[in-house]
Amino acid sequence: MEGTRQQLVEQIEQLIEQDSHAEISSTLAGVHPSKIAEIIDQMDRNAQVFVLLSLGNHITSEVLPELHESLREELLSILDEKQIADIAEEMDSDDAADLIHKLPEEKAEDVLAKIDPEERMEVEPLLKYPDDSAGGIMQTEVLKGLPESPAGQTIEKIRKLSQSNQIEEYHRIYVVDKNNKLVGTVSLGKLVISDETTPLWSVMESISPETTLSPMTDQEEVALLFRKYDLISAPVVDEDGELLGRITGDDIMDVIAKESEEDLLKAAGVGGDHLHPIHTPTFEKIKVRTPWIVFTLLGELLIAFVVLHNFQVTLEQFAILAAFMPAIMAAGGNVGVQTNTVVIRSLGMGTISSGQVVSILFAEMKVGLILGLLCGIMGAFTVEFINTGHPSNIMVGYAVFIAMISATLATSSIGVVLPMLLKKFNIDPAASSGPFLMMFNDILGSIFYLFVGTILLF
Amino acid sequence: MEGTRQQLVEQIEQLIEQDSHAEISSTLAGVHPSKIAEIIDQMDRNAQVFVLLSLGNHITSEVLPELHESLREELLSILDEKQIADIAEEMDSDDAADLIHKLPEEKAEDVLAKIDPEERMEVEPLLKYPDDSAGGIMQTEVLKGLPESPAGQTIEKIRKLSQSNQIEEYHRIYVVDKNNKLVGTVSLGKLVISDETTPLWSVMESISPETTLSPMTDQEEVALLFRKYDLISAPVVDEDGELLGRITGDDIMDVIAKESEEDLLKAAGVGGDHLHPIHTPTFEKIKVRTPWIVFTLLGELLIAFVVLHNFQVTLEQFAILAAFMPAIMAAGGNVGVQTNTVVIRSLGMGTISSGQVVSILFAEMKVGLILGLLCGIMGAFTVEFINTGHPSNIMVGYAVFIAMISATLATSSIGVVLPMLLKKFNIDPAASSGPFLMMFNDILGSIFYLFVGTILLF
Repeated sequence: MEGTRQQLVEQIEQLIEQDSHAEISSTLAGVHPSKIAEIIDQMDRNAQVFVLLSLGNHITSEVLPELHESLREELLSILDEKQIADIAEEMDSDDAADLIHKLPEEKAEDVLAKIDPEERMEVEPLLKYPDDSAGGIMQTEVLKGLPESPAGQTIEKIRKLSQSNQIEEYHRIYVVDKNNKLVGTVSLGKLVISDETTPLWSVMESISPETTLSPMTDQEEVALLFRKYDLISAPVVDEDGELLGRITGDDIMDVIAKESEEDLLKAAGVGGDHLHPIHTPTFEKIKVRTPWIVFTLLGELLIAFVVLHNFQVTLEQFAILAAFMPAIMAAGGNVGVQTNTVVIRSLGMGTISSGQVVSILFAEMKVGLILGLLCGIMGAFTVEFINTGHPSNIMVGYAVFIAMISATLATSSIGVVLPMLLKKFNIDPAASSGPFLMMFNDILGSIFYLFVGTILLF
Repeated sequence: MEGTRQQLVEQIEQLIEQDSHAEISSTLAGVHPSKIAEIIDQMDRNAQVFVLLSLGNHITSEVLPELHESLREELLSILDEKQIADIAEEMDSDDAADLIHKLPEEKAEDVLAKIDPEERMEVEPLLKYPDDSAGGIMQTEVLKGLPESPAGQTIEKIRKLSQSNQIEEYHRIYVVDKNNKLVGTVSLGKLVISDETTPLWSVMESISPETTLSPMTDQEEVALLFRKYDLISAPVVDEDGELLGRITGDDIMDVIAKESEEDLLKAAGVGGDHLHPIHTPTFEKIKVRTPWIVFTLLGELLIAFVVLHNFQVTLEQFAILAAFMPAIMAAGGNVGVQTNTVVIRSLGMGTISSGQVVSILFAEMKVGLILGLLCGIMGAFTVEFINTGHPSNIMVGYAVFIAMISATLATSSIGVVLPMLLKKFNIDPAASSGPFLMMFNDILGSIFYLFVGTILLF
């Protein structure tokens, strides 16, 4: 597969030299849009634009959503409003809305004005919902029918859509009353075995409030519902129960992958979006990564400041204390990260709730204490093993032991409380609790350790 | 919703006291299985078993897959082989295989022997595939038809399944020849508009090799294919093209969520499975978390050892050097984690390949250098600011500056090379590259720093 892709890239680069739009289009006809996206990804900028313009609006409309976000935005900045409008018209309403959402405001308005009115009516309502809400990811194209209309009529509708090549994987027929209020759904499996004259109401399933979405529901919550109820599609209705659109499982797969991706990236302080390691300009990377680096470094520099002002004499007499600082910080930090990760994940999966904070705290501190004892014993033994010959050596061992246990106890409790607190205030714990925890551990852990050491040794 | 769930829990606890199996069953009839699972989750062990035995095999078969793995295994260890076999018979083949896979070997064989032969024939073939392969997550229940059989015959089949309440969200009809070789698929949308007499071959879509899975394909790869081609279901065939089963989108959502979950948990050294913070026994938690804690602590204790043996004199004269050790380690560590995270994610999403290692290395080292310069300047200024009055103060500033830049340069290159190397040897980089990177950074970073400091100051 790698081979054929490389061959295609070379073949197309030759066609570009021959300035042959038509042949590029025919070469790529029948190639899956996501494969075309991969091919485009490997070319230089001029070639990318050339290929995109060769493809024709329909194929371009399917290729664009498959490109990396940064590349897509750059290519769109080269196309003019009319070109983008023509491409957007070929898209499903949700993809078109996504595309327009990401454009600069003025350009977005111009594009919208140039779109064919019928398509605009489908896209415009979507633009008012946030990108990451149910309304932002739904499609407005749904197959609807009145309760009293016979099954045969719906089948006829599907036949027409199929002839105009607009058929899709319609998983359900949404049954609405004359005010567009959703009253039930009919699966295609049910429709296929229904008599042509059977009215939809007699074969429809009733609406379950749990699996009917509101447009403002966060996409992460939508994904949890899909997983919980094993859904393949779900309707979105407004507060009056009017049908607005539907969300399908393939979009939810992307949501699940992107949300966890985002958590991972944010936790490492590299922003929420996936920035391609090669394609992203250095300046862009620096801009995204600097805040976290500077923030954490400031904390560590504060340690240097406090340590030197308060414990210079201690350290000059007992260099051995300094030598064990990294171990104290690592033990506290690692135990804290473990607790923090487990709690954040459990919150994300909804397996724990804020009411359980005390029992979780108790359970995790027990683990923290045991791991702290283990670390403390290992640390104290190492002190003995190094044996500086100094008579106070045993006191250094005690200091290491006490500091290890206090550090792990402290971080295992903060690892529980901090993410649950952040969650309560609607701050994403995955993104922010890690760095704070580490900073807390490093600053307080090292200072407490030297404090205990000073008391024991002087 | 929280309220009603709590009410249900209390209501059921009362019914348990009255020893009323039948009323529990009728109270929970119509409640969604995943909600029943949540209710069971909140009860004590005896109540859990009581409820499970009240539900009847059919509902139990739907509730069990929704329970947390650890709870499910404990409950299954209480049930006997016959009870488990009866429950497994009610399950889809993939869920039944999962259930049996997780049992102790001997018990698994006994359960299998007690299952009704027809169901056993569906489940047994699944047991030979790894849990996390396409074969392990597929269902063997598929709707099949011969190419020449008329559409009406397939519709009749669906009608029969629907009457025996076995209808499911069948998304596609798989067209196979008389040797069970897959030759095409027909969507329900297509079937619904087909004439009863139309043979399946005339309306079927041909098989695309890209979206036809082999049973040994890793589930993570399967998920990537589903996302890439926006699939809702996909067939699994053996090397001769014989149809083995199908995988549906709802299972893939769980795969995507679990795989990224696993990455996150492994990276924090808390194993690959989600262990509930409250329900998991302390001993179990300790067992899973200890290796990482001990491994990293050993590295940090090695630092103490090396530092003391080589730099005791340096540290006793220049306590200020010790005070900046945490800052050096943090700068190198954080820059490395950022690079590492971006590279691991890009590898996971398939946006970079091993052939691009040099250009990625170059791009990331540029970022590492700039961030290192920033950290170095901040560090050196802090040294100046603290100003111990010692004439060598400026040299400490130089040492901090040089150590910061070397550390970030080193970790940003290891953050690229290490995960790509691990990937090449088929080791999951998400799980293992983080701890190694941190250890490398802490050990070499601190030693190199003190080495530079010693040279500059003596």
